[in-house]
Amino acid sequence: MSRQLKLNLFIYPGGHHEAAWRYKDSDPDRVLDLSYYAELAHKAEAATFDAIFLADGPALAENIRYASRFRIEPFTWLAGLAAVTSRIGLIATASTTYSEPYNLARLFAGLDHLSKGRAGWNIVTTGAANAAQNFGLAEHPVHAERYERAGEFVEVVTKLWDSWEDGALVADQESGLYADDGRIHTIDHIGQRLRVRGPLNTPRTPQGRPVYVQAGSSEAGRSFAARWAEAIFTAHQTFENAQAFYSDVTARALGLGHAQPLILPGISPFIGSTEAEALALKAEFDELTQPEHSLHQLHRMIGVDLLSYDLDGPFPREVVSTEGERGLGSRFQVVLDIVDREQPTIRQLLHRLAGARGHWVVAGTPEQVADHIEYWFRNGAADGFNVMPPWLTGGFDLFADHVVPLLRARGIFRSEYTGTTLREHYGLPRPDSQYDQLPKTTYATA
Amino acid sequence: MSRQLKLNLFIYPGGHHEAAWRYKDSDPDRVLDLSYYAELAHKAEAATFDAIFLADGPALAENIRYASRFRIEPFTWLAGLAAVTSRIGLIATASTTYSEPYNLARLFAGLDHLSKGRAGWNIVTTGAANAAQNFGLAEHPVHAERYERAGEFVEVVTKLWDSWEDGALVADQESGLYADDGRIHTIDHIGQRLRVRGPLNTPRTPQGRPVYVQAGSSEAGRSFAARWAEAIFTAHQTFENAQAFYSDVTARALGLGHAQPLILPGISPFIGSTEAEALALKAEFDELTQPEHSLHQLHRMIGVDLLSYDLDGPFPREVVSTEGERGLGSRFQVVLDIVDREQPTIRQLLHRLAGARGHWVVAGTPEQVADHIEYWFRNGAADGFNVMPPWLTGGFDLFADHVVPLLRARGIFRSEYTGTTLREHYGLPRPDSQYDQLPKTTYATA
Repeated sequence: MSRQLKLNLFIYPGGHHEAAWRYKDSDPDRVLDLSYYAELAHKAEAATFDAIFLADGPALAENIRYASRFRIEPFTWLAGLAAVTSRIGLIATASTTYSEPYNLARLFAGLDHLSKGRAGWNIVTTGAANAAQNFGLAEHPVHAERYERAGEFVEVVTKLWDSWEDGALVADQESGLYADDGRIHTIDHIGQRLRVRGPLNTPRTPQGRPVYVQAGSSEAGRSFAARWAEAIFTAHQTFENAQAFYSDVTARALGLGHAQPLILPGISPFIGSTEAEALALKAEFDELTQPEHSLHQLHRMIGVDLLSYDLDGPFPREVVSTEGERGLGSRFQVVLDIVDREQPTIRQLLHRLAGARGHWVVAGTPEQVADHIEYWFRNGAADGFNVMPPWLTGGFDLFADHVVPLLRARGIFRSEYTGTTLREHYGLPRPDSQYDQLPKTTYATA
Repeated sequence: MSRQLKLNLFIYPGGHHEAAWRYKDSDPDRVLDLSYYAELAHKAEAATFDAIFLADGPALAENIRYASRFRIEPFTWLAGLAAVTSRIGLIATASTTYSEPYNLARLFAGLDHLSKGRAGWNIVTTGAANAAQNFGLAEHPVHAERYERAGEFVEVVTKLWDSWEDGALVADQESGLYADDGRIHTIDHIGQRLRVRGPLNTPRTPQGRPVYVQAGSSEAGRSFAARWAEAIFTAHQTFENAQAFYSDVTARALGLGHAQPLILPGISPFIGSTEAEALALKAEFDELTQPEHSLHQLHRMIGVDLLSYDLDGPFPREVVSTEGERGLGSRFQVVLDIVDREQPTIRQLLHRLAGARGHWVVAGTPEQVADHIEYWFRNGAADGFNVMPPWLTGGFDLFADHVVPLLRARGIFRSEYTGTTLREHYGLPRPDSQYDQLPKTTYATA
């Protein structure tokens, strides 16, 4: 089969537009109901999507008055969705800064087992500084420190997932041998930041390890992605930026002798039966935004408070500083690019960012949206997309019902699943355990 | 309605007897299939059980060759089961020693939200010393230290679960107010061992907090239970011991001005159409045990290795020492009581313990099992039971199909659910948030 798009549904409780919850067809009362998410997962599975995806962070955002900013805990909610679906992948965001590797390895093992091989891990180091105080720290570790821990953390959990070789669970009723302890290994990790003995307390999972996904766009983030990522989530406003990112990260991975990771930008589509209808729909959403909230969001992205400025005046480019940690955030450069390219007023910039927090927003007919997707896909800017509907569930219905059939008709997206695991959907190999080749010694018995 | 039994199904992957997986009607190949656990949950729900319950520990046991000793991670598996059930409670064991309170609070909030109020927390401090090395510690914290942290830990997560008052999530589309930040509170906990700012990043859950369950039987464990527990899981071999425990813990709770906790001993029933058939079934299981494994288990409980002794000789009471940490384990006294009462051979003792790791094993007809249950229930030894089938799924089918109808006929167990949450099943109030009475200040906005 020719190269196929990878498509994820990125679920944000009310939808991705910051005013989604105020839209007349949204369901703000259902955002804590499993049935709401199950409907989305079923719809995505019927549309043969590769995966659903949940973002995460272990702290409450500060600007909670005007937008849906709470979090649904990814492992419990995705496990619930695993039980009512059979094919679609389940990608959980989890932090290497604010998790214990043993506990996190267990959660992913659980999700991969019970879903029969559909788990993916969006590896993040947590950008929100206020998380630190939820974990007994006075200060959020700086960017470089977080990435150093992240590298060691991934090494550790990889060893834990490998610590039971395939076949270690024997369960031979006749002989009485339940587990072949020669195929179960302590990992004995003693590193700069982590000490973990292992083994994991559960057998190797259907996929061996969850699919490794990463989303950093800083220098450290790209290096990390090249080293570890099997898929990369990324935010771009223009084809040129996306293409440059694609080339850069691909070259880094190949340079390390690694397989080329899948690159999956976000896309937030407003879909109408005419372009004018789609644009009007987008305008309707922008009208529902609340500037106090939007300005706070912008403040978080670029470190500048514009509350005292005229919203309809020009964006004051000169007040933005790239110094310190701020310039390392994944959205900082995205915002500056928009400013430099479009010279927007503050209000125009806020509306540009309201759609999907810096991700690519398109408005058009199903054909136009499919054209955008196909163009990026065929021209070295994307292997697929994280679809980020402006609102849920209706905003996704439009994509599934009207865009997906076009992508299928063009031969770039599957009409049925050919595999059962997320690795199979993504065309990734199932890794061997790194302990497979070791002598079969006996796991300690007292 | 008269006082009613509380019944939980305690699920251990292959069943509770250490040789369960070798029994001809067991399903050792299904212990990593969600469908296996879903069958059990459905059966328990059809039997109007209060809850299913998973034990846990963040380390792999050492004696894994001869028995099913791996763990299924409670949050993911119970969340999966929540999605396919509607009434039954879901009790997860989680450690206060080896968890971060913020992460744990989130997992329980997720489970309680998606199950619409069916989560319970079996609070443990983790007895297995080898867990320490999975978390970067050289030594497992001693018993007293673990309980000190446990007290502070429960205080912290309670504050986190209370940090969003009911009604803080407004979502008024017209006014644009999504969350009333005056009803969302930082907890600002600064204690001896933990510093956590909060608030939690999710709205208050259907039950407010999960049901607090505890299982310690040491002095520190009983004090902790009296302070915090709404239900207590416990292991007793005799009615007299169970009754004494019941009186002691009840008095401690009432002495603190707390409501009387529900006391739920474990019971592992071998059921036959005649008593002889039940005893033969138990004997069949005992024949499947492997002494090397059983001796290792005994070693863990009492700290003595009897590998070099004659299995059919008398148990050498004189080698057991109560010194140090060992005597604090929850099964130590249970074993010594059996020894002192029954003067068993080593093999007889191993068989006594093989059934359910020190919990009460009964063998008899459905009527006899129901008689035992009713006697303990009516005479101050139990408010209900953790049912621990020797093997699964068949061992539970016998209880559900043959014992439950008798308990219903005797008027001591419900025929249908009257509530939807675990608190309602257990007859427990839904707690108010401790922040309800505070002035409505504004949660920090930048």
